[in-house]
Amino acid sequence: MGEGVEWGLHCCLALAWLDEQAPIPAGRLAEIFELPPVYLKKRLQPLVKAGVLVSVAGARGGYRLGRAPERITLMDVVAAVEGATEAFRCTEIRQRGAGVEAVGGEFAKPCGVAGAMRRAELAWRRELAAQTIADLLAVSPPGAPDRIRRYHERVSRWRTMPSWVGRE
Amino acid sequence: MGEGVEWGLHCCLALAWLDEQAPIPAGRLAEIFELPPVYLKKRLQPLVKAGVLVSVAGARGGYRLGRAPERITLMDVVAAVEGATEAFRCTEIRQRGAGVEAVGGEFAKPCGVAGAMRRAELAWRRELAAQTIADLLAVSPPGAPDRIRRYHERVSRWRTMPSWVGRE
Repeated sequence: MGEGVEWGLHCCLALAWLDEQAPIPAGRLAEIFELPPVYLKKRLQPLVKAGVLVSVAGARGGYRLGRAPERITLMDVVAAVEGATEAFRCTEIRQRGAGVEAVGGEFAKPCGVAGAMRRAELAWRRELAAQTIADLLAVSPPGAPDRIRRYHERVSRWRTMPSWVGRE
Repeated sequence: MGEGVEWGLHCCLALAWLDEQAPIPAGRLAEIFELPPVYLKKRLQPLVKAGVLVSVAGARGGYRLGRAPERITLMDVVAAVEGATEAFRCTEIRQRGAGVEAVGGEFAKPCGVAGAMRRAELAWRRELAAQTIADLLAVSPPGAPDRIRRYHERVSRWRTMPSWVGRE
Protein backbone atom coordinates (compact mmCIF):
# COMPACT_ATOMS: atom_id res chain seq x y z
CA MET A 1 0.00 0.00 0.00
CA GLY A 2 1.42 3.38 -0.98
CA GLU A 3 1.60 6.52 1.12
CA GLY A 4 -1.56 7.80 -0.60
CA VAL A 5 -3.85 6.19 1.97
CA GLU A 6 -2.08 7.83 4.93
CA TRP A 7 -2.05 11.17 3.10
CA GLY A 8 -5.69 10.86 2.02
CA LEU A 9 -7.01 9.96 5.47
CA HIS A 10 -5.09 12.72 7.25
CA CYS A 11 -6.23 15.25 4.63
CA CYS A 12 -9.83 14.16 5.26
CA LEU A 13 -9.35 14.85 8.97
CA ALA A 14 -7.79 18.25 8.30
CA LEU A 15 -10.58 19.16 5.85
CA ALA A 16 -13.17 18.19 8.46
CA TRP A 17 -11.52 20.50 10.99
CA LEU A 18 -11.18 23.30 8.43
CA ASP A 19 -14.69 22.86 7.04
CA GLU A 20 -15.73 26.46 7.85
CA GLN A 21 -12.63 27.77 6.06
CA ALA A 22 -13.02 25.51 3.01
CA PRO A 23 -12.16 25.22 0.20
CA ILE A 24 -8.56 24.54 1.27
CA PRO A 25 -5.93 24.55 -1.50
CA ALA A 26 -3.77 21.44 -2.01
CA GLY A 27 -0.73 23.61 -1.24
CA ARG A 28 -2.06 24.36 2.26
CA LEU A 29 -2.77 20.68 2.95
CA ALA A 30 0.75 19.93 1.75
CA GLU A 31 2.16 22.54 4.18
CA ILE A 32 0.12 21.17 7.08
CA PHE A 33 1.70 17.73 6.68
CA GLU A 34 4.96 18.82 5.02
CA LEU A 35 4.21 16.87 1.85
CA PRO A 36 5.27 17.52 -1.77
CA PRO A 37 2.39 19.73 -3.09
CA VAL A 38 2.29 18.55 -6.71
CA TYR A 39 2.43 14.90 -5.75
CA LEU A 40 -0.19 15.36 -3.01
CA LYS A 41 -2.53 17.00 -5.52
CA LYS A 42 -2.10 13.99 -7.79
CA ARG A 43 -2.90 11.63 -4.88
CA LEU A 44 -6.06 13.62 -4.00
CA GLN A 45 -7.47 13.43 -7.55
CA PRO A 46 -8.89 9.90 -7.17
CA LEU A 47 -10.59 11.01 -3.93
CA VAL A 48 -12.33 13.76 -5.88
CA LYS A 49 -13.33 11.30 -8.57
CA ALA A 50 -14.79 9.01 -5.89
CA GLY A 51 -16.77 11.87 -4.33
CA VAL A 52 -14.86 11.67 -1.03
CA LEU A 53 -13.57 15.19 -1.70
CA VAL A 54 -15.00 18.04 -3.75
CA SER A 55 -12.62 20.19 -5.73
CA VAL A 56 -13.42 23.89 -6.20
CA ALA A 57 -11.61 25.53 -9.13
CA GLY A 58 -10.23 29.06 -9.21
CA ALA A 59 -7.76 31.30 -7.38
CA ARG A 60 -9.65 30.84 -4.10
CA GLY A 61 -10.38 27.20 -4.87
CA GLY A 62 -9.29 24.02 -3.15
CA TYR A 63 -10.84 21.00 -1.50
CA ARG A 64 -13.59 20.21 0.94
CA LEU A 65 -15.11 16.94 2.12
CA GLY A 66 -17.58 15.56 -0.41
CA ARG A 67 -20.00 14.39 2.28
CA ALA A 68 -20.40 14.31 6.05
CA PRO A 69 -17.51 12.56 7.89
CA GLU A 70 -19.84 9.82 9.13
CA ARG A 71 -20.68 8.98 5.53
CA ILE A 72 -17.06 8.54 4.40
CA THR A 73 -15.69 5.11 5.29
CA LEU A 74 -12.03 4.16 5.36
CA MET A 75 -12.91 1.70 2.59
CA ASP A 76 -14.06 4.64 0.42
CA VAL A 77 -10.65 6.29 0.84
CA VAL A 78 -8.60 3.10 0.41
CA ALA A 79 -10.60 1.95 -2.64
CA ALA A 80 -10.29 5.38 -4.26
CA VAL A 81 -6.54 5.66 -3.66
CA GLU A 82 -5.47 2.05 -4.16
CA GLY A 83 -8.08 0.93 -6.67
CA ALA A 84 -10.36 -2.07 -6.43
CA THR A 85 -7.71 -4.64 -7.39
CA GLU A 86 -7.42 -7.45 -4.86
CA ALA A 87 -4.07 -7.89 -3.11
CA PHE A 88 -3.99 -11.59 -4.00
CA ARG A 89 -3.99 -12.24 -7.70
CA CYS A 90 -4.97 -15.75 -8.78
CA THR A 91 -3.27 -16.74 -12.03
CA GLU A 92 -4.82 -20.24 -12.12
CA ILE A 93 -1.50 -22.06 -11.99
CA ARG A 94 -3.49 -25.18 -11.09
CA GLN A 95 -4.62 -25.37 -14.74
CA ARG A 96 -1.08 -25.28 -16.12
CA GLY A 97 1.56 -28.02 -16.31
CA ALA A 98 -0.01 -31.19 -14.89
CA GLY A 99 -3.33 -29.33 -14.95
CA VAL A 100 -3.75 -29.73 -18.71
CA GLU A 101 -4.52 -33.42 -18.05
CA ALA A 102 -7.53 -32.60 -15.87
CA VAL A 103 -10.85 -34.03 -17.03
CA GLY A 104 -14.51 -33.82 -16.14
CA GLY A 105 -14.69 -30.10 -15.48
CA GLU A 106 -12.23 -30.28 -12.60
CA PHE A 107 -11.70 -26.53 -12.75
CA ALA A 108 -15.36 -25.58 -13.17
CA LYS A 109 -15.53 -24.39 -9.55
CA PRO A 110 -13.36 -21.39 -8.54
CA CYS A 111 -9.98 -22.27 -7.05
CA GLY A 112 -10.16 -22.92 -3.29
CA VAL A 113 -6.86 -21.12 -2.75
CA ALA A 114 -8.22 -17.97 -4.39
CA GLY A 115 -11.45 -18.33 -2.42
CA ALA A 116 -9.61 -18.57 0.88
CA MET A 117 -7.47 -15.55 0.09
CA ARG A 118 -10.58 -13.65 -0.98
CA ARG A 119 -12.33 -14.41 2.32
CA ALA A 120 -9.42 -12.83 4.19
CA GLU A 121 -9.51 -9.80 1.94
CA LEU A 122 -13.26 -9.46 2.48
CA ALA A 123 -12.66 -9.46 6.26
CA TRP A 124 -10.20 -6.59 5.72
CA ARG A 125 -12.65 -4.68 3.53
CA ARG A 126 -15.50 -5.25 5.98
CA GLU A 127 -13.42 -3.78 8.79
CA LEU A 128 -12.45 -0.76 6.68
CA ALA A 129 -16.08 -0.24 5.65
CA ALA A 130 -17.17 -0.31 9.29
CA GLN A 131 -14.98 2.67 10.22
CA THR A 132 -15.65 6.24 9.13
CA ILE A 133 -13.81 9.56 9.08
CA ALA A 134 -16.15 10.54 11.94
CA ASP A 135 -14.72 7.65 14.01
CA LEU A 136 -11.19 8.91 13.31
CA LEU A 137 -12.21 12.45 14.30
CA ALA A 138 -13.59 11.09 17.57
CA VAL A 139 -10.25 9.49 18.54
CA SER A 140 -8.05 12.36 17.38
CA PRO A 141 -6.04 14.28 19.99
CA PRO A 142 -8.28 16.98 21.56
CA GLY A 143 -5.76 19.71 20.69
CA ALA A 144 -5.46 18.85 17.00
CA PRO A 145 -8.51 20.65 15.49
CA ASP A 146 -7.72 24.04 17.06
CA ARG A 147 -4.03 23.69 16.31
CA ILE A 148 -4.72 23.02 12.61
CA ARG A 149 -7.24 25.92 12.46
CA ARG A 150 -4.81 28.35 14.12
CA TYR A 151 -2.03 27.29 11.74
CA HIS A 152 -4.28 27.76 8.71
CA GLU A 153 -5.52 31.18 9.86
CA ARG A 154 -2.04 32.45 10.68
CA VAL A 155 -0.51 31.32 7.39
CA SER A 156 -3.50 32.69 5.44
CA ARG A 157 -3.24 36.10 7.18
CA TRP A 158 0.50 36.26 6.62
CA ARG A 159 0.13 35.40 2.93
CA THR A 160 -2.48 38.11 2.27
CA MET A 161 -0.53 40.94 3.96
CA PRO A 162 0.59 43.78 1.71
CA SER A 163 4.11 43.25 0.41
CA TRP A 164 5.55 46.23 2.38
CA VAL A 165 4.80 44.62 5.76
CA GLY A 166 7.99 43.67 7.46
CA ARG A 167 10.07 45.89 5.21
CA GLU A 168 9.99 48.84 7.61
CA MET B 1 1.20 -9.30 -2.91
CA GLY B 2 3.54 -11.20 -5.20
CA GLU B 3 2.94 -14.52 -6.93
CA GLY B 4 4.88 -16.29 -4.15
CA VAL B 5 1.74 -16.80 -2.05
CA GLU B 6 -0.17 -18.50 -4.88
CA TRP B 7 2.87 -20.64 -5.71
CA GLY B 8 3.53 -21.50 -2.06
CA LEU B 9 -0.05 -22.51 -1.29
CA HIS B 10 -0.43 -24.66 -4.40
CA CYS B 11 2.94 -26.31 -3.70
CA CYS B 12 1.74 -27.13 -0.17
CA LEU B 13 -1.34 -28.83 -1.66
CA ALA B 14 0.77 -30.79 -4.15
CA LEU B 15 3.22 -31.83 -1.43
CA ALA B 16 0.33 -33.02 0.73
CA TRP B 17 -0.95 -35.18 -2.15
CA LEU B 18 2.55 -36.47 -2.91
CA ASP B 19 3.46 -37.06 0.73
CA GLU B 20 4.15 -40.78 0.21
CA GLN B 21 6.47 -39.96 -2.69
CA ALA B 22 8.30 -37.15 -0.88
CA PRO B 23 10.77 -35.56 -0.96
CA ILE B 24 9.71 -33.87 -4.21
CA PRO B 25 12.36 -31.80 -6.01
CA ALA B 26 11.66 -28.13 -6.74
CA GLY B 27 12.01 -28.96 -10.44
CA ARG B 28 9.07 -31.37 -10.25
CA LEU B 29 6.90 -28.83 -8.43
CA ALA B 30 7.86 -26.32 -11.12
CA GLU B 31 6.78 -28.79 -13.84
CA ILE B 32 3.49 -29.55 -12.12
CA PHE B 33 2.51 -25.86 -12.25
CA GLU B 34 4.63 -24.81 -15.25
CA LEU B 35 6.67 -22.36 -13.17
CA PRO B 36 10.29 -21.19 -13.61
CA PRO B 37 12.25 -23.74 -11.49
CA VAL B 38 15.06 -21.51 -10.22
CA TYR B 39 12.67 -18.75 -9.24
CA LEU B 40 10.25 -21.18 -7.61
CA LYS B 41 13.10 -22.64 -5.54
CA LYS B 42 13.93 -19.12 -4.35
CA ARG B 43 10.28 -18.53 -3.40
CA LEU B 44 10.14 -21.80 -1.44
CA GLN B 45 13.21 -20.97 0.67
CA PRO B 46 11.34 -18.73 3.16
CA LEU B 47 8.76 -21.50 3.61
CA VAL B 48 11.58 -23.86 4.60
CA LYS B 49 12.97 -21.25 6.98
CA ALA B 50 9.51 -20.89 8.55
CA GLY B 51 9.17 -24.65 8.99
CA VAL B 52 6.18 -24.87 6.63
CA LEU B 53 8.31 -27.05 4.33
CA VAL B 54 11.28 -29.30 5.04
CA SER B 55 14.07 -29.39 2.52
CA VAL B 56 16.00 -32.65 2.03
CA ALA B 57 19.44 -32.23 0.42
CA GLY B 58 21.04 -34.57 -2.08
CA ALA B 59 20.40 -36.10 -5.50
CA ARG B 60 17.15 -37.68 -4.32
CA GLY B 61 16.30 -34.67 -2.18
CA GLY B 62 13.50 -32.15 -2.41
CA TYR B 63 10.66 -30.87 -0.27
CA ARG B 64 7.96 -32.23 1.97
CA LEU B 65 5.47 -30.52 4.29
CA GLY B 66 7.08 -29.50 7.56
CA ARG B 67 4.04 -30.45 9.62
CA ALA B 68 0.55 -31.89 9.20
CA PRO B 69 -1.70 -29.89 6.81
CA GLU B 70 -4.09 -29.02 9.66
CA ARG B 71 -1.19 -27.37 11.47
CA ILE B 72 -0.16 -25.09 8.58
CA THR B 73 -2.32 -21.98 8.39
CA LEU B 74 -2.59 -19.69 5.39
CA MET B 75 -1.14 -17.00 7.66
CA ASP B 76 1.99 -19.17 8.11
CA VAL B 77 2.47 -19.28 4.34
CA VAL B 78 1.64 -15.61 3.71
CA ALA B 79 3.84 -14.40 6.59
CA ALA B 80 6.75 -16.56 5.41
CA VAL B 81 6.51 -15.44 1.79
CA GLU B 82 5.53 -11.80 2.22
CA GLY B 83 7.22 -11.05 5.54
CA ALA B 84 5.62 -9.58 8.62
CA THR B 85 5.57 -5.98 7.34
CA GLU B 86 2.12 -4.41 7.56
CA ALA B 87 0.52 -3.29 4.30
CA PHE B 88 -0.22 0.16 5.74
CA ARG B 89 2.88 2.03 6.75
CA CYS B 90 2.35 4.95 9.15
CA THR B 91 4.98 7.65 8.63
CA GLU B 92 3.55 9.97 11.32
CA ILE B 93 2.84 12.83 8.92
CA ARG B 94 0.62 14.29 11.67
CA GLN B 95 3.81 15.29 13.52
CA ARG B 96 5.28 17.17 10.56
CA GLY B 97 4.45 20.63 9.20
CA ALA B 98 1.77 22.12 11.44
CA GLY B 99 2.42 19.23 13.83
CA VAL B 100 5.65 20.73 15.15
CA GLU B 101 3.48 23.26 17.03
CA ALA B 102 1.69 20.56 19.01
CA VAL B 103 1.97 20.83 22.78
CA GLY B 104 1.05 18.80 25.85
CA GLY B 105 2.01 15.38 24.54
CA GLU B 106 -0.57 15.52 21.76
CA PHE B 107 1.16 12.63 19.97
CA ALA B 108 1.74 10.50 23.06
CA LYS B 109 -1.05 8.13 22.00
CA PRO B 110 -0.61 6.15 18.76
CA CYS B 111 -2.18 7.74 15.66
CA GLY B 112 -5.86 6.85 15.26
CA VAL B 113 -5.45 6.50 11.49
CA ALA B 114 -2.71 3.91 11.95
CA GLY B 115 -4.80 2.16 14.61
CA ALA B 116 -7.83 1.94 12.31
CA MET B 117 -5.75 0.57 9.45
CA ARG B 118 -4.13 -1.93 11.82
CA ARG B 119 -7.55 -3.18 12.98
CA ALA B 120 -8.44 -3.98 9.37
CA GLU B 121 -5.14 -5.75 8.84
CA LEU B 122 -5.68 -7.78 12.01
CA ALA B 123 -9.07 -8.89 10.68
CA TRP B 124 -7.27 -10.08 7.53
CA ARG B 125 -4.61 -11.91 9.52
CA ARG B 126 -7.21 -13.48 11.80
CA GLU B 127 -9.06 -14.86 8.79
CA LEU B 128 -5.84 -16.23 7.27
CA ALA B 129 -4.86 -17.79 10.59
CA ALA B 130 -8.26 -19.49 10.83
CA GLN B 131 -7.77 -21.40 7.57
CA THR B 132 -5.33 -24.28 7.13
CA ILE B 133 -3.84 -26.28 4.28
CA ALA B 134 -6.15 -29.09 5.44
CA ASP B 135 -9.15 -26.82 4.73
CA LEU B 136 -7.82 -26.16 1.23
CA LEU B 137 -7.30 -29.89 0.66
CA ALA B 138 -10.91 -30.49 1.71
CA VAL B 139 -12.29 -28.12 -0.95
CA SER B 140 -9.93 -29.20 -3.74
CA PRO B 141 -11.42 -30.88 -6.82
CA PRO B 142 -11.85 -34.63 -6.08
CA GLY B 143 -9.81 -35.56 -9.15
CA ALA B 144 -6.78 -33.42 -8.33
CA PRO B 145 -4.82 -35.65 -5.88
CA ASP B 146 -4.83 -38.71 -8.16
CA ARG B 147 -4.09 -36.63 -11.23
CA ILE B 148 -1.03 -35.04 -9.57
CA ARG B 149 0.15 -38.45 -8.29
CA ARG B 150 -0.23 -40.06 -11.72
CA TYR B 151 1.65 -37.19 -13.35
CA HIS B 152 4.47 -37.43 -10.83
CA GLU B 153 4.80 -41.22 -11.18
CA ARG B 154 4.71 -41.14 -14.96
CA VAL B 155 7.32 -38.38 -15.25
CA SER B 156 9.51 -40.06 -12.59
CA ARG B 157 9.36 -43.43 -14.42
CA TRP B 158 10.16 -41.83 -17.75
CA ARG B 159 13.12 -39.95 -16.29
CA THR B 160 14.68 -43.04 -14.67
CA MET B 161 14.45 -45.19 -17.80
CA PRO B 162 17.77 -46.29 -19.30
CA SER B 163 18.95 -43.91 -21.97
CA TRP B 164 18.54 -46.45 -24.79
CA VAL B 165 14.73 -46.67 -24.32
CA GLY B 166 13.03 -45.15 -27.30
CA ARG B 167 16.16 -45.31 -29.41
CA GLU B 168 15.30 -48.69 -30.85
